[in-house]
Formats: sequence, C-alpha cells, structure tokens
Amino acid sequence: MTLADVQEAARRIEGVAVRTPLVRTPALGEGLWLKPETLQPTGAFKIRGAVNAVRKLPERARAAGVVTHSSGNHGQALAYAAREAKVPCWVVVPEGAPQVKVDAMRDLGAEIVLVPPPERPGRAAELAAEHGAALIPPFDHPDVIAGQGTIALEILADLPEVEVVAVPVGGGGLISGVALAVKALRPGVRVVGVEPELAGETAESLRTGNLTTWPVEQTYRTVADGVRTHPSELTFAHIQSYVDDIVTVPEEAIRSAVGVLARGARLVVEPSGALTMAAYATGALPPGRTVAVLSGGNIDPALFRDLL
Amino acid sequence: MTLADVQEAARRIEGVAVRTPLVRTPALGEGLWLKPETLQPTGAFKIRGAVNAVRKLPERARAAGVVTHSSGNHGQALAYAAREAKVPCWVVVPEGAPQVKVDAMRDLGAEIVLVPPPERPGRAAELAAEHGAALIPPFDHPDVIAGQGTIALEILADLPEVEVVAVPVGGGGLISGVALAVKALRPGVRVVGVEPELAGETAESLRTGNLTTWPVEQTYRTVADGVRTHPSELTFAHIQSYVDDIVTVPEEAIRSAVGVLARGARLVVEPSGALTMAAYATGALPPGRTVAVLSGGNIDPALFRDLL
Repeated sequence: MTLADVQEAARRIEGVAVRTPLVRTPALGEGLWLKPETLQPTGAFKIRGAVNAVRKLPERARAAGVVTHSSGNHGQALAYAAREAKVPCWVVVPEGAPQVKVDAMRDLGAEIVLVPPPERPGRAAELAAEHGAALIPPFDHPDVIAGQGTIALEILADLPEVEVVAVPVGGGGLISGVALAVKALRPGVRVVGVEPELAGETAESLRTGNLTTWPVEQTYRTVADGVRTHPSELTFAHIQSYVDDIVTVPEEAIRSAVGVLARGARLVVEPSGALTMAAYATGALPPGRTVAVLSGGNIDPALFRDLL
Repeated sequence: MTLADVQEAARRIEGVAVRTPLVRTPALGEGLWLKPETLQPTGAFKIRGAVNAVRKLPERARAAGVVTHSSGNHGQALAYAAREAKVPCWVVVPEGAPQVKVDAMRDLGAEIVLVPPPERPGRAAELAAEHGAALIPPFDHPDVIAGQGTIALEILADLPEVEVVAVPVGGGGLISGVALAVKALRPGVRVVGVEPELAGETAESLRTGNLTTWPVEQTYRTVADGVRTHPSELTFAHIQSYVDDIVTVPEEAIRSAVGVLARGARLVVEPSGALTMAAYATGALPPGRTVAVLSGGNIDPALFRDLL
C-alpha cells in the first residue's frame, strides 16, 4: 500500500463521508485539536473504509453485494455504504448482539443473519460464495485501511503545524491508514496509538516485536467496547513500520474523558472514541500540537448518562 | 447592509470560527441536514459575530478594547475574540449570574464587572466611555449580524439544492444575517425562524407587523434560555424584509429534540439550539430539503442528563 491508495480513497469517499473539521475549545487546552469522527452519518470513522471498499469494487462484483460479520460500527458503515451504492448487504451477527445495533443495520437495508458466535466467519464466507458477494472485513483489508487513512490527509491540510496525531487502536485499521499517510507526507509528525490498559495487547506486541493476543476474558473487561479486538498480521505490519508508539490508559481515565468531551466540547463520544482524550489528559502523549482522533460516538444512552 | 458585508465577514473570521460541516444521520431522516454551531470554540455561533466586530474595528479603537453586557454565549464569544485579538474585554454581568459562565469568561481573560441587573446597560456605556472601548452588543449591531450571516454562505456552498433553512430566533441577530445572505444569493430558498411557544413574540410581531414584546414572566418560562430576548428595531426590520415565516414549538418538543440530537446525531445541543430540530420533528417547517441550524451547545449537565 502507498500514499496514492489513500489519496484515491479520499476522492472516492467525497460527498458520502463528512469532511470533519478540527475543533478546539478553551476548556480542553490550547495545544489540543479534536477530530470528531462522531459526525459521520453512522457515528464513526468506519464509513470511510466501508465506502472506499464498496466503491472500489469492479461494477459487476459490486452489483452482487457485500458481506461482513461485524455487528458494531463497521456493520452499520457497510450497510450505509451498500445502500448508498444500491447493492445488497448481508451482515452476520452473533446471537445476543444488542437489538439497537441490529435494528440500525436493518433500517439501513442490510439483511441480518443471526448465528452462534463461533460460526460467524464461516457463515460470512458461505454467504459470499453463495451470492458472489464481496467480503469486506472491519479492518483486515487494504481498501478499508486506505479509507481510514483519509483522516490523515484532512488533518495535515487543516493543521500543517501538527506535531502529534493520537489514534485509538483496536483491530488497527484506523491507525494503519493514518500512520501510513502521515509518514509518507510528514515523517516528523509523531503517530501515537492509544489502548485501554485492559486491552493493551498491541502496545505489548509493538514493544516485543511479536503479535500477541490477550485472553478475551481480560480484554472484554474494558468499557471501550470498540477496541477489544486485536490487529491482524496486515495491520500489525503497518503499525511496526509507521507508528511511533502505543500508550495505554486506565479505565477511570477513559470514563472521565467521555464526560470531559461532552461538557467541554459538546460531543457525544463512545469510550473507544475518547481514548485519545484520556491519553492527552493523563499526560501519556508526547508534547506538542496534538490532534486527537475521536473515532466514534455510538454509546449506550444509560452509560453516557452515568459518565456525564 | 448588503451581501458584501457578509462576504467580507466570512474572510475576516476565517481561521478563528470553525467552518462547520453539514451533518446527516439516517436516524433523523433523509431530508434533514444539521449545521452544528455547537462545534465553535465557545460552543455557539456567537463567535462569528463577535470576531467580525472586533476585527473590523480600526486598529486604534480595537487596541482600547471591547465591552458588552451579555453574560450568555455572546459574552464568552466576545471574550474569546478579544483574547484572540490581544485586546482588553469587559463584560458587565448581573449579580446572580451562573458562576460557571462567569468563570468561563474570566478564564478567557475578560474582566467581569458585577452589577445589579437594571444597571447593566448604563454600566457598560460608562466603561466604554471611561476606557474608549467599543460597545459590542449581542445582536443589535451590523457587524455582529454580518458575522452570523456567514453561516448562510457555508450552507449554500455545501448544499446548493437546499430548499429550507431553519434558524432559532431570540434577539434576531442570527436570522437577520442568515436571511439577508440567503435571499441575496438564492431568493427561492425559504428562511424560517423558530421560537418557543412561550416566547413567540417575534412570530406574533411578524404576523401583526408591529414589534411586540411579551412580559418577562412569560418568556422566562421556556427551557430555551438563549432565546428569551426579543428583536431590536434593526433585527426586526431584517426579519420583515427577508424572513418567510416564524413558527413556534411547544416545550415538550424542545426538550425531546435535545435527546434526539444526542442519541441520533451524537451532538450536545442546548434547548435554544435544538429549536429547529423540534420544529422539523413536529412538522412545523415547510417541506423540502432542510438545513436546521443548531445554534449552540452550552447546556447545564444536570438538565442534559434529564433530557437524554
């Protein structure tokens, strides 16, 4: 993958993904700019990768539709992208997934296929074969990564004097695309990933040089439900090549950051989206003019009320 | 005032006010675009008028500083604009004003002058005379109106096919600027103001042709605290010349709209800012592709929690 992939993605997603502004507020400090991907149509950056992947499919393949097995923000984003392209979309969802998320994808026209959790990848592959549809995974795909990287182009255009870009890390699709583009254009800008301490497997992997995964019983304890996954070989390779550092933040700082962003920046941000604010507030980031990517805003209203 | 005043204001505020995007979400409907002025540095559109007014002052006058007697969103915006211009700012505040607002202005470097409520205008005039400072009122001023009108230029550039622009109405500075610019550029686009039923004096005034004011005991009952004021002769003249209609919404619809925007668009919006969403949801707006201006997001966290 090269910078050109990201630049082409930027042209491809124009008019569907929102070009989010950088936002500052005196309450949060002089040196901090927020990149609120919460403003995207489905409330998260995932729309960038999904739209890029769908639009990049050759016309005949696209017409057959798309499949994924994410019930989270990527599922909604792919359903949105498929509706926009007027092609069918299947989302394989584990039994027991939150009804509100299932409803959101169904409202966007996706066909929901409920299966026992372990059968998800298999069922998705079957659906793809059966319908000739393209499998678009949440992060382990060059077109998805290139789409997420468009965030970096906007940051560098809007704040050429940026020194640090902070990005949440789950599966690593977002940071892979962002770091690739930042380092191609401005190698001096530091790209720093942020994970919860409870799901700090990528920080550990980057330190040891080996892709490590932690037990699900551990990572599922973090409130930041969007980053409980771990990188693939593809995204980990990008992280090793382009990311300066990955830092971790405690649960209390993540919970607190959600409230700080609501009160201080008038943004509804989910815990995973607030990781970068938590890192800034706890002094975990290197010094300098900092852009904190707020990756998404799909938070359960009851939890949000608690954190306000 | 002419379109040129608004166009010059747009150049003047560039880089200080955020160029807010238009935001859509499937949850809120296909025909609705939101203009979230909640993303401005002090959380409301007021920064546009304040920055335009301060920057337009001749250099010598500007150096002497600026004065106002609003303790609300305009006070914070003027304090921000003055700090940015490195000039002094005095804000005359009624005794008993919320401490959080006073602190916010003081943190921005404004000097706070506490007086009994009836003495506010007099004390502001005294301060202006004493320091040779310029009095910048919250809405009754052409440079303030021109600044607020820049919102219209952005809307027309981002959504040329817009048919309805909905704007909250309090003192009328925002709708004066927006309507002037919209009608100069695209007379076929309908500009509709929105007021709470409990503070519907401008709707009544537009209908009767006479600027009417309602008793404070009535207008202060609305939860939409930012629009309890009424237009001046200057802003009412703009409204009569350029605004198509002013509609009113009940309290319950305003309260509900705050929750809808938080859950459906991940935006923290104050009740006054949510008036246009309330009007859209209750069917009070004319049909067609609609931009709802969300004017501000400075809401008391306890009230916000109640409305979620």
